[in-house]
Amino acid sequence: MIQQTVERYRAYLEKLRAYRHAMGLMTYDMSTIMPKGAGPIVGDTLGVLSAVTYDLLTAPETEAMQAEILAHRGEVDPAIVRTAELAMEQRARIACIPKEEYVQYTVDQTTADRVWHEAKLRSDFASFLPHLEKLIAAKKRFARYYQPDAPVYDTLLDAYEKGLNTETLDGFFRTVRDRLVPVIARIKEQPDVSFLHRHYPVAQQRIFSDYLMDVLGLDKNHCVIGETEHPFTTSFTKNDVRITTHYHEDAVELSMYSVIHEGGHATYERNIADDVARLPIGKGVSMSVHESQSRFFENIIGRSEPFIEAIFPRMQQIFREQLKDVTAHQFYVAVNKAEPSLIRTEADELTYSLHVMIRYELEKRLFNGDLAAKDLPVEWNRMYKEYLGVDVPDDRRGVLQDSHWATGLFGYFPSYAVGSAYGAQLIKRMENEIDVWGNVRAGNLRPIVEWLTAHIYRFGCMKDPVKLMEEAFGAPFDPTYYTDYLTKKYSELYRLA
Amino acid sequence: MIQQTVERYRAYLEKLRAYRHAMGLMTYDMSTIMPKGAGPIVGDTLGVLSAVTYDLLTAPETEAMQAEILAHRGEVDPAIVRTAELAMEQRARIACIPKEEYVQYTVDQTTADRVWHEAKLRSDFASFLPHLEKLIAAKKRFARYYQPDAPVYDTLLDAYEKGLNTETLDGFFRTVRDRLVPVIARIKEQPDVSFLHRHYPVAQQRIFSDYLMDVLGLDKNHCVIGETEHPFTTSFTKNDVRITTHYHEDAVELSMYSVIHEGGHATYERNIADDVARLPIGKGVSMSVHESQSRFFENIIGRSEPFIEAIFPRMQQIFREQLKDVTAHQFYVAVNKAEPSLIRTEADELTYSLHVMIRYELEKRLFNGDLAAKDLPVEWNRMYKEYLGVDVPDDRRGVLQDSHWATGLFGYFPSYAVGSAYGAQLIKRMENEIDVWGNVRAGNLRPIVEWLTAHIYRFGCMKDPVKLMEEAFGAPFDPTYYTDYLTKKYSELYRLA
Repeated sequence: MIQQTVERYRAYLEKLRAYRHAMGLMTYDMSTIMPKGAGPIVGDTLGVLSAVTYDLLTAPETEAMQAEILAHRGEVDPAIVRTAELAMEQRARIACIPKEEYVQYTVDQTTADRVWHEAKLRSDFASFLPHLEKLIAAKKRFARYYQPDAPVYDTLLDAYEKGLNTETLDGFFRTVRDRLVPVIARIKEQPDVSFLHRHYPVAQQRIFSDYLMDVLGLDKNHCVIGETEHPFTTSFTKNDVRITTHYHEDAVELSMYSVIHEGGHATYERNIADDVARLPIGKGVSMSVHESQSRFFENIIGRSEPFIEAIFPRMQQIFREQLKDVTAHQFYVAVNKAEPSLIRTEADELTYSLHVMIRYELEKRLFNGDLAAKDLPVEWNRMYKEYLGVDVPDDRRGVLQDSHWATGLFGYFPSYAVGSAYGAQLIKRMENEIDVWGNVRAGNLRPIVEWLTAHIYRFGCMKDPVKLMEEAFGAPFDPTYYTDYLTKKYSELYRLA
Repeated sequence: MIQQTVERYRAYLEKLRAYRHAMGLMTYDMSTIMPKGAGPIVGDTLGVLSAVTYDLLTAPETEAMQAEILAHRGEVDPAIVRTAELAMEQRARIACIPKEEYVQYTVDQTTADRVWHEAKLRSDFASFLPHLEKLIAAKKRFARYYQPDAPVYDTLLDAYEKGLNTETLDGFFRTVRDRLVPVIARIKEQPDVSFLHRHYPVAQQRIFSDYLMDVLGLDKNHCVIGETEHPFTTSFTKNDVRITTHYHEDAVELSMYSVIHEGGHATYERNIADDVARLPIGKGVSMSVHESQSRFFENIIGRSEPFIEAIFPRMQQIFREQLKDVTAHQFYVAVNKAEPSLIRTEADELTYSLHVMIRYELEKRLFNGDLAAKDLPVEWNRMYKEYLGVDVPDDRRGVLQDSHWATGLFGYFPSYAVGSAYGAQLIKRMENEIDVWGNVRAGNLRPIVEWLTAHIYRFGCMKDPVKLMEEAFGAPFDPTYYTDYLTKKYSELYRLA
């Protein structure tokens, strides 16, 4: 009896997967290949498909199947039980939204994204503003439909990271700010980084990207690299993962660390256990955990001296002219230059969290407070001056720099900072169990990926993120691992002793 | 009353468009970007989506709407009437197929295509055979469901080109063979083409492709170029058209003529009138008419001396070393070298139709006769020897060379030959009305595109293909225009007088 329901549920999940696959591919295509002038057609198509997914997710039959599976949880494959469990939570978030609003939001989001691309090019916040306001208003309504009495921003945060709220984050960012701002203040003399800005032709950088994917252990039979304005990773199954990068011919480190960052996301998706991979739970469990992996590979591994030592000989072959008078140590120092700056994705490890904190504070005020979207540029610029000491010359390099808000990702940014902090606690545990740095120095990341697979990747969404990470840490989350790690690393780099 | 039905029908068409858009993008992605090891997921997704399109196309409500619109044709937008008319014909083809067979075919087709790619690499027909057999069996069943008493191959031909049958094609190919084989036989001395096979790096060829797109007048804001194994064109709307090419570093003319050929398809799609563009009839009307445009630009324009003269200065800038000792005339002669060969897509204009004829004869015997799929390689090789005098060294360069059969396109090949013949008759009419060659020599293709838009492109599927072409010719179709054109061109090139 229950097995029949499970079979019907599996067929239902396969249908849902197909729609998500199609919609995901369309979104990927829009950011990589689609001609700029394609017009509103993608939004219209996504509107049609999202109406169907709304029906699939909220149908009474769906709820009945899931309830039945949960009532017989002892007799059912745990992966299916977990899927039903999470689906019930997701259903509660969605079913309270009127269908027309849900579909309209999909269309508006696609439009806002398109308008933002143009607006950013022209540094024209005004043209983007009405679209942004529409998305914010929708997100507020949706949050209130679901939890009428909770602060809106907490509802949004919880969607990306179950259990995360402003109370936790206020504490987290306070620790980060209190401990890192003094370190930043002590930095005076800067290293020479001019060689990073020699001419690095795209053709050579593409070869370098391929090499980095090999170092990360990404099988090109299952993971391809594409080019886009704002790098991201997407995964349709563990056998079809796409990373993206953006080449700047005058700054070799930008694409380099994009590839490693996105490669970290891809490594997570590629190593989910086969028995959950095709289910909705066969993906990274939360945004913070996902960003913990991308930023772990980007910074803790990728910006370590042993890693640079391992890859530098090959780099010097690829960039023969550009790096002929540079040592691995000089390169290591250069890619770790810490300096308050304008662009989050180009920020160093030390100042990075302050960029995130500014976005967090602004989002909190947008949703829980009284900040109006129209005032974002002024407030953005004020906070960059206050926390990072930099003057924002235009909105292109200010409030319009990130794609997140244009696609309705409010409450996502904190994941980057929390994820960074997760990585610092993770490496401590890992160092106790395997020879991390000996392997990195030998260019062998496999033991690290295996450790992460055993503790994190394979589970997909089988565990809640907080529990997953506590088990991986062998302890509760403690952000001082992160501040200690950065303090030590930058004290050594800048001889702040 | 009827206007309400029209509104409902428009909403239905928009839904259908969305599904086709999603499925089209997935197919495009599979041939361009998707990692090789992605596995069966695409077929599974296409299976789910094709089940929905089957329902949309065959639903009794759909039929009722269309019947009502046709009953009130005088009161309804002619584009909607035409859409309903063609949809009723398409419905008749599809509704007779059991849904499970229709969906299974979509899945099988995707699998066959994937297996074929691998089989071709290894020149391994045996591994492809069971998949090919499955597609052939399905196509036979589908044709018989629809027209139990008609010869199967005629039913297939009619699907690609309404009104085309084996009787017409037998006559067409007889004319072509009888008139062109003697010309081919008289060719003795061959020009020097060695400079085509110097080293042409992909990076330079990409720049050349961009230039060719500019010459063709393709707006990159609406038309992008990608790379694939077997070049094709796809269009999601007239504002989002994708062409593809394949670069060979030792044969510059291959990608060059792929780009011009696919550019011809794209030019057609880009110039469909706005008022039909978003409807199902907003596309090229038939395969022959589509191929007439691609092969018109590829050969009649692209392999003409005035065209080569127009683009050669820029070519010499891009390929400075490779073409420094070559004249435009030498290049013109080289890209028109006529010689029986193995690969259809690389064949010259003169022998091209014989490649198509072989496929036509084989398909006819596969579907109307008693040729078994397993005997295809032997028969293929025998006919290449008989008609073209070449020995086929392996199936990779023989029966496995084309992608068409692997995606179930049986009855498509004749379109290439008929389309080529259409072009020769078209240019005669065009020459009477505009200064074709003066403009080509000046690198200005706009008057040609405008003429074709006025006579062909803008209509989309508003007219039947035969009527459309007769009106464009100002006369019935006559294949001797084609044989005369080729006889004259090659008699001059090879001084066969």
